[in-house]
Amino acid sequence: MNSYMQDRIKGFTEKNENKARFLIKCPDQPGIVSTVSEFLFKQGANIVESDQYTMDPEGGQFFMRIEFECPNLMKNANKIEKDFQPIAEEFHMDWRIMYVSQLKNVAIFVSKEPHCLLELLWEYQSGDLMANIALVISNHDTCREMVESLGIPFYHIPANKDIRQEVEEKQKQLLKEYEVDLIVLARYMQILTDDFVKNFKNQIINIHHSFLPAFIGAKPYERAYARGVKMIGATSHYVTGDLDEGPIIEQNIGRVDHRDNASDMKKIGQSIERSVLASAVKWHLEDRIIVHENKTIVF
Amino acid sequence: MNSYMQDRIKGFTEKNENKARFLIKCPDQPGIVSTVSEFLFKQGANIVESDQYTMDPEGGQFFMRIEFECPNLMKNANKIEKDFQPIAEEFHMDWRIMYVSQLKNVAIFVSKEPHCLLELLWEYQSGDLMANIALVISNHDTCREMVESLGIPFYHIPANKDIRQEVEEKQKQLLKEYEVDLIVLARYMQILTDDFVKNFKNQIINIHHSFLPAFIGAKPYERAYARGVKMIGATSHYVTGDLDEGPIIEQNIGRVDHRDNASDMKKIGQSIERSVLASAVKWHLEDRIIVHENKTIVF
Amino acid sequence: MNSYMQDRIKGFTEKNENKARFLIKCPDQPGIVSTVSEFLFKQGANIVESDQYTMDPEGGQFFMRIEFECPNLMKNANKIEKDFQPIAEEFHMDWRIMYVSQLKNVAIFVSKEPHCLLELLWEYQSGDLMANIALVISNHDTCREMVESLGIPFYHIPANKDIRQEVEEKQKQLLKEYEVDLIVLARYMQILTDDFVKNFKNQIINIHHSFLPAFIGAKPYERAYARGVKMIGATSHYVTGDLDEGPIIEQNIGRVDHRDNASDMKKIGQSIERSVLASAVKWHLEDRIIVHENKTIVF
Amino acid sequence: MNSYMQDRIKGFTEKNENKARFLIKCPDQPGIVSTVSEFLFKQGANIVESDQYTMDPEGGQFFMRIEFECPNLMKNANKIEKDFQPIAEEFHMDWRIMYVSQLKNVAIFVSKEPHCLLELLWEYQSGDLMANIALVISNHDTCREMVESLGIPFYHIPANKDIRQEVEEKQKQLLKEYEVDLIVLARYMQILTDDFVKNFKNQIINIHHSFLPAFIGAKPYERAYARGVKMIGATSHYVTGDLDEGPIIEQNIGRVDHRDNASDMKKIGQSIERSVLASAVKWHLEDRIIVHENKTIVF
Repeated sequence: MNSYMQDRIKGFTEKNENKARFLIKCPDQPGIVSTVSEFLFKQGANIVESDQYTMDPEGGQFFMRIEFECPNLMKNANKIEKDFQPIAEEFHMDWRIMYVSQLKNVAIFVSKEPHCLLELLWEYQSGDLMANIALVISNHDTCREMVESLGIPFYHIPANKDIRQEVEEKQKQLLKEYEVDLIVLARYMQILTDDFVKNFKNQIINIHHSFLPAFIGAKPYERAYARGVKMIGATSHYVTGDLDEGPIIEQNIGRVDHRDNASDMKKIGQSIERSVLASAVKWHLEDRIIVHENKTIVF
Repeated sequence: MNSYMQDRIKGFTEKNENKARFLIKCPDQPGIVSTVSEFLFKQGANIVESDQYTMDPEGGQFFMRIEFECPNLMKNANKIEKDFQPIAEEFHMDWRIMYVSQLKNVAIFVSKEPHCLLELLWEYQSGDLMANIALVISNHDTCREMVESLGIPFYHIPANKDIRQEVEEKQKQLLKEYEVDLIVLARYMQILTDDFVKNFKNQIINIHHSFLPAFIGAKPYERAYARGVKMIGATSHYVTGDLDEGPIIEQNIGRVDHRDNASDMKKIGQSIERSVLASAVKWHLEDRIIVHENKTIVF
Repeated sequence: MNSYMQDRIKGFTEKNENKARFLIKCPDQPGIVSTVSEFLFKQGANIVESDQYTMDPEGGQFFMRIEFECPNLMKNANKIEKDFQPIAEEFHMDWRIMYVSQLKNVAIFVSKEPHCLLELLWEYQSGDLMANIALVISNHDTCREMVESLGIPFYHIPANKDIRQEVEEKQKQLLKEYEVDLIVLARYMQILTDDFVKNFKNQIINIHHSFLPAFIGAKPYERAYARGVKMIGATSHYVTGDLDEGPIIEQNIGRVDHRDNASDMKKIGQSIERSVLASAVKWHLEDRIIVHENKTIVF
Repeated sequence: MNSYMQDRIKGFTEKNENKARFLIKCPDQPGIVSTVSEFLFKQGANIVESDQYTMDPEGGQFFMRIEFECPNLMKNANKIEKDFQPIAEEFHMDWRIMYVSQLKNVAIFVSKEPHCLLELLWEYQSGDLMANIALVISNHDTCREMVESLGIPFYHIPANKDIRQEVEEKQKQLLKEYEVDLIVLARYMQILTDDFVKNFKNQIINIHHSFLPAFIGAKPYERAYARGVKMIGATSHYVTGDLDEGPIIEQNIGRVDHRDNASDMKKIGQSIERSVLASAVKWHLEDRIIVHENKTIVF
């Protein structure tokens, strides 16, 4: 990382050293909000932002995200989490507290097309995407220069179907070495094995270049052109074992008309892909997403 | 009101007889969420939806909207409000509880162009706009048939600058008689007096046919055409003494190009006006809007 | 038709008595534009609007739409068409001239849900949709009143799978009687037979309540909800023998989030359906659409 | 320019060596389309794309853009233009033929904020913006590295109100030296003198960070926040002597809500500015824009 980004990140973490995000998922019942907010109040915390959602008012699933500030947060983090344990058990909560000053380590996987990578790097430089971009892994060498010029390590690991396992071994070693929390597939054109995906549940974000579930699989722009659609789209989603079937985080579309051939659609689509992927990554980094079955709650 | 709408409204109020919305505005300080949610829990209420916003984290203004359900709500309403009084005083709250089963009485003001009125009537019939449309007042007689065919009283009160006071007297009498809570100016082309507006603070919603603050005042489509804009818009806002300067509730836009003359823009604009006004009215009816100075918080 | 619409239509046809639209499709070669425009010039016609498109610059398909005005057009129509014949043959053209003052006769098919029908009727009344709405056919009786109040004949023909042939016989007889040029399926929930569809090639417009090709077939909103999409859409298309596979005319989408259940999606979708269907019908009535294989060129 | 871009540009100019765009503006009268297309046919040209527009059907202004291909175009260019002269005189045409292989020389002016510059450089690299980016001029030195890394000359000319004339002298000298055809103000925060602007009529494109005519002048995001708008926008336009009053080329908007402060609006706005400016520049480079009085016709 270059010194400019080091300064920027230092400024961010210092400013947010007492800020955290509380994510909760549990069966709905009366008293959850009251109990959690009273708990935070007793810890001396101030609630900055709070969102909740009940999937089905009667006997349903309850989701909550609270952003709070608390003096001396990092010193008290262990105590807070320990004190909350009994409440969590009483309400059968699936919960976690994420500390804003602990930036997530991100690995970006890319192939030849650089547009999504470039968008992420640009938002990173501009301070809109607060994370530690730890490394970039690519099965081609084309993007090396733009990555290394920012002081980010770049690893070229050639890949194809036949050496998939071997490739993933190398990747997993790097991900471990850099303590990666989030993998972004920024138009990485290789399929990951089930085994790899299971190791990073809800930690791999992919961009698919169609408005899913339309045009699942390969060559979506060509197929969109053949079908004669009047709009094309892009979808960011968490990766699961089923290709292009994981929980959708964000989608957007752009207008095309009869004058646009498959190659025009691809160009129009690229700018949609860029913003849809960047939004999904930002929301993940801000701990705004709770995955429930095959859906996302985005607070 | 015809019998079809009577049945529909009866169904809605019965289904929501135990539902209410809690709106709070106060100086920010720790413990508000905790105190309010604990209060509701002790009343036996279950929080269905909750939103909050602090205008400036340090020493700012706090806003909250809670939707809750409570057994035997209407029997206990007085007690709940009385019990809350000490809390409200402690936190210097500006607050109200709105009971969902108590439908708001709405008066629609219209001139000759019926598109906004028709949209409201259509959403009313389809059950998307839950209110009691008590009456329609117009300075022309053109819309009488479409209003009366739904069993809604229609009053034709001719108006012009010179008889403004006299006209408003008649209007105020009708508004009082029908116990009106909300006035919707659905392209009503007469200016209201300051005195009239003050009587209905944050209770009059207007639709302006431009993307405010562009093209304040008369003939916005003609002026948009003259300026050569590439998009036109519409704005719904609460009416204040300053023409077109009240708190904005919703805006939207549509694309135009050089082929569209002022009359084409008007047609394109009408469908934007329809949806922008309908959204604003729905959000008001659902008690989603808190006005603060010259802005709206829309939960 | 009521007298208000009679006057409006009379005004429109008189104003456009000398206006026509020329639609051409042929193999691309040099000289087409030159020849056609010279032909029109010699007829004394003035070109008001002209669009062209070549599907593949080298050896491809050429499409053109010209809107022109010509003195005494209807008296000379036969002569113009006859004079053009040799040119059409030389360039192997598929062509037609549509006279603006000859309004198309439209039949609307509807089931229970009235939102698309209402939108069409509203645009018809406001003068945005210039056609002769000749009749409405429904398998339910629910929409009778709103149709007949405009002076438009309403036919209730109950339908189900088992009596499909018998039903279509009745429909075809009515379509013949009213000399119908265009059938609009405004949420008509019955499947038409291949035989029926073949009789009205590129003359039946349907609205499908999804962003095709996603969610082909039944219950698209329920399936969109189950998949957890972040946008829902609607598609208008010409009907062919393959369900939901015909040439797409227009699509649009709306944003949804995790709070929207299938029923919310349906409400949001209805307003998209309305505008997408209305656009398609208008473009068809204005002779803006040329169908080529399974695609539409929309000028 | 680096070798990668040299190759790409060479490929583009070779592919388009026989392609040109014909732009015409004249009083409307019968026979224009016929005469021009016959002229092109006789030159052996094939019309690839053709658009026309008459500003007011009766006695109005006629505009046309024709894209054509012609064997040995560059050898015959002089002859074509000379042969067309009598036609141009007969119809009182304001016209020009632009040869696609003659790339325009572009100068980008920028201050500190790099987002618009970066977007243009990125579209330039990806081949979407076909021009010769001849130089970048800035009143700060911050963007030097990103410009020079692409082999594009970067000139740092410090500027302020007091030395305006001196600064513009230096700029004009550079623009002359590089034979610049188009100046793009990519968030250049200095006002140009009337004299400078007159020298480059319809050759300077600016991006203004509001939905003009709302928030003309300084600090539009701050003022948008103060007004409580629900959407913010950006406008690209040709620069004239009147600040922010020149012919609008493109506009777009993005949604904001009460949670977005002026700084959030600025971030949201930046991505709108990027795409709105890039579109305007592309349309200019593709000779799609005709300026008429204070409006643009964008074909």
